[in-house]
Amino acid sequence: MLEKWIVGVDLGGTTTKLAFVQENGELIYQWEIDTDNSDAGKNILKNISESINQKLTYLKKEKDILLGIGMGAPGAVDINKGIIYEAVNLGWENRFPVVQILSDLTGLPVVIDNDANCAALGEMWRGAGQGSKDLVCVTLGTGVGGGIIVNRKIVHGAKGAAGEIGHITVIPENGSPCNCGKTGCLETVASATGISRIAVEAVQNENVESLLKQTYEKNGTITAKDVFDCVRENDLLAKEIVNKVSFYLGLALANIGNGLNPEKIVIGGGVSKAGDTLLTPLLTYFKKFSFTPVAQSTSIDLATLGNNAGVIGAAWLIYDRK
Amino acid sequence: MLEKWIVGVDLGGTTTKLAFVQENGELIYQWEIDTDNSDAGKNILKNISESINQKLTYLKKEKDILLGIGMGAPGAVDINKGIIYEAVNLGWENRFPVVQILSDLTGLPVVIDNDANCAALGEMWRGAGQGSKDLVCVTLGTGVGGGIIVNRKIVHGAKGAAGEIGHITVIPENGSPCNCGKTGCLETVASATGISRIAVEAVQNENVESLLKQTYEKNGTITAKDVFDCVRENDLLAKEIVNKVSFYLGLALANIGNGLNPEKIVIGGGVSKAGDTLLTPLLTYFKKFSFTPVAQSTSIDLATLGNNAGVIGAAWLIYDRK
Repeated sequence: MLEKWIVGVDLGGTTTKLAFVQENGELIYQWEIDTDNSDAGKNILKNISESINQKLTYLKKEKDILLGIGMGAPGAVDINKGIIYEAVNLGWENRFPVVQILSDLTGLPVVIDNDANCAALGEMWRGAGQGSKDLVCVTLGTGVGGGIIVNRKIVHGAKGAAGEIGHITVIPENGSPCNCGKTGCLETVASATGISRIAVEAVQNENVESLLKQTYEKNGTITAKDVFDCVRENDLLAKEIVNKVSFYLGLALANIGNGLNPEKIVIGGGVSKAGDTLLTPLLTYFKKFSFTPVAQSTSIDLATLGNNAGVIGAAWLIYDRK
Repeated sequence: MLEKWIVGVDLGGTTTKLAFVQENGELIYQWEIDTDNSDAGKNILKNISESINQKLTYLKKEKDILLGIGMGAPGAVDINKGIIYEAVNLGWENRFPVVQILSDLTGLPVVIDNDANCAALGEMWRGAGQGSKDLVCVTLGTGVGGGIIVNRKIVHGAKGAAGEIGHITVIPENGSPCNCGKTGCLETVASATGISRIAVEAVQNENVESLLKQTYEKNGTITAKDVFDCVRENDLLAKEIVNKVSFYLGLALANIGNGLNPEKIVIGGGVSKAGDTLLTPLLTYFKKFSFTPVAQSTSIDLATLGNNAGVIGAAWLIYDRK
């Protein structure tokens, strides 16, 4: 059988990740280019097309080795029409016709989806969710993103807003404001930004000595990583904060579990690098808030693909359309 | 084309509803028989088979008009293996092989699912969810049941526990105990039983005069219907209770919406007969706790099929397997 590759693209506001991926999901070659969002982002797709051609030349391959391009994009996507409604970071607005333009430029089939959905598909294909057909991925980064997969397909919902796990309301009264306009969203407590905010508020309000307070006095801020580092040093205040974060995250994930009973809930993103320091208290609350059969059959696992989940999952979009 | 019928069966602890249903989901004829759960429920399926034969004779139809039997059953179901793990009300235990026995008795194809899932499918096929492919049904009865449909298929999850909307935790701290062993489940506040409990607690703890209190003093108890009736009489205490119920139900439904962004969330069951008295405050909280695109694109509607949803949805199981 002739070898065929899929191009996976993970489009970000500053960097675009690209990869050639085999039909079994294995990464062949990956690279990055800057995302040029000047001039309303009109160079972005041209640069991607040219970069793919250059890389093929460099690897001494013909273009006909490529089956197509799968792309994960930030912002709300209409996958059927192949448009991005708006992506502020890229300069795109007014229903930008990504699929049309990129397939005209490359002569290849193009499929797009939201970047959080692509990360979920990547983890399903080659990561922590391998072998599962029903899984939920939660990305704890600057914000909180999510992707819900039922029967190996992303759930998009009525307006492409399915999987917005970061905007599950976990503090229905007196919660902090979220960028989305609501208050008390999961994102306000379980993102890196949210954890940092909770930590800063805690040292400002608590009059006890703590390692966390020392960190704040030294650096003028506290990162999510600082909090987890302090837990490992047995700092009580840091433990309280991680307990609080785990309470809300555990509640949200248990309620997703009570609705969908997926085989796995996969946690990725920068915050997930805390590993067991987060996972141990999280599991306690997840089990506390889960219906018994869900607690017994839905597992929580750390993502394994890191930053590669996006390009691999984007490539899945082409693999899956065959 | 020859007319074909599907048998829809809605198996309950005391009554079994049966119906002949056309291939477009229209009810032809429906009837009920008692559920004989004596002798570990060994007569239940035999009675169903005989009743179907009698009804065909009565209607002067041959058995070959029947395409198959779809059945909704209480309790956890393994739809692929065609077994019911356990159904205490029926006397069945230890993975009862329903499909095998009923198809041996009738010579017809048999498909089963959980009764709440069948109600959801019924509303999708011929009820409030007609035309939708992604919808969620919530049945507010003695308990709270649910069915989640993605792309016109029920989501079953890893252990058949998907759709357990009644066990979504809405009161994470100091909630009332639920039959499932957890505390603070939606069922403890939004079922008929839960609303009654909240009302009784309220009149016992509040020292204000109210119509609700008079009802309690007269009847020794308060039903969910009493509460909604008192709201229509402008009783303040009853309004507070419905507001509280709507708050928790709105929170749970908004969070389902934030995860799945279904086209519709359909509310059925006895409590839903309250109509706008429930729906109006519910919508306020649903919108408050929903991510904006979800609030704009997921609607909440009252179920329209009433008690027929189960038999119609059960018939869908056969229609859909073709």
